[in-house]
Amino acid sequence: MLTMGLERLVLVAPRFFPHPEASALASGATRVLDAARVVATLDEALADCIFTVGFSARPREFAGHVVPVRAAARKVLTQATAGEVALVFGTEMSGLSNVELARCTMVATIPANAAYGSLNLAAAVQVASYELRVMALGDAVWEAPRFPLATSGEIEALYAHAARTMTAMRFLNPQMPKRLLPRLRRLFARAGLEKEEVNILRGILTRVDALMDAQGPSGAER
Amino acid sequence: MLTMGLERLVLVAPRFFPHPEASALASGATRVLDAARVVATLDEALADCIFTVGFSARPREFAGHVVPVRAAARKVLTQATAGEVALVFGTEMSGLSNVELARCTMVATIPANAAYGSLNLAAAVQVASYELRVMALGDAVWEAPRFPLATSGEIEALYAHAARTMTAMRFLNPQMPKRLLPRLRRLFARAGLEKEEVNILRGILTRVDALMDAQGPSGAER
Repeated sequence: MLTMGLERLVLVAPRFFPHPEASALASGATRVLDAARVVATLDEALADCIFTVGFSARPREFAGHVVPVRAAARKVLTQATAGEVALVFGTEMSGLSNVELARCTMVATIPANAAYGSLNLAAAVQVASYELRVMALGDAVWEAPRFPLATSGEIEALYAHAARTMTAMRFLNPQMPKRLLPRLRRLFARAGLEKEEVNILRGILTRVDALMDAQGPSGAER
Repeated sequence: MLTMGLERLVLVAPRFFPHPEASALASGATRVLDAARVVATLDEALADCIFTVGFSARPREFAGHVVPVRAAARKVLTQATAGEVALVFGTEMSGLSNVELARCTMVATIPANAAYGSLNLAAAVQVASYELRVMALGDAVWEAPRFPLATSGEIEALYAHAARTMTAMRFLNPQMPKRLLPRLRRLFARAGLEKEEVNILRGILTRVDALMDAQGPSGAER
């Protein structure tokens, strides 16, 4: 829950709570457990809610309005502007009963492998919380630092340098260039060259130039 | 993995494998473990792949192309038509190293609470597998059985019946109907009445009619 920014947990008639194992597994997120509200019945948990979504992995005859979790997340967010909402999960062993599910406004389910469809409770809560977060906040994620991009002028100077050096190396025949330079252009255009990368590539070319100069006419350029 | 239809697991230098605890936790999905390929290095695991996505919760300086898991799932599916692809996850404790991440074509991350952003390995795999499944197969889910819907004629007969009974009950004044009938129409239109529900509602009205008949002129209809 906390990884997805959810902090309000209500436990209905837990067999063991608080429990040292739960606290240990919560590694660093114990404040969600510490603040958990414990109630005796599902009705008590949902009393103030205007919209509740029960999760069920298996088909139920009277489930009414069943939607995939992504659509449920959209609806929950809409309704959350009007009052309290809740996601409702059953026990690890048997999920929500039909009676409990009938207490919910909407039934949601997680698209899964029909041959092995039952997610662990924790896994189901993770997926549902994730969908809520993406629906609420979009899927902005951390970005790697941006480094300054090379200009066209810098990139053309690189290609000109590369053409000279490869010609001197006899790797490129300027009379029959074939597809070598276009392929290199395609590769680097796809990557999007940064200034520093152009400098590194030109440094490599300059080093090759120096090697050939040192070899003199007996070298590659003879 | 199996809940989302994924079956090909490769383990890189596992400390313990096979392990009875892993088999116990896999409850019913042991064939994924049984078929798991064990290799000594990440390079060996990825050798035949044309596209690999490494997952990282934390920003990395040289991560290059970082995308949210939903966009990564789209890209993985596109590339899967051209060759082998892989999702790459690090250890529970420390994730992928920078060197391991640099082996991957793309870096993906799961949008999470910046203040508590690190999902368990199992939770991250669940979310990533779920996104792959929804991207590949859509989010078709089980549906509750459809019962035959009532026709307009049946529904209008219900409202006419309701208007007669409520008038007889002196709950509705046909000269000043106010908003009662429009509100009932709105409620039932939103629900979408089924044939059997119309029959139930008309049964209730008929029962009320009978009660009033039995009471005679001293009853509500006097």
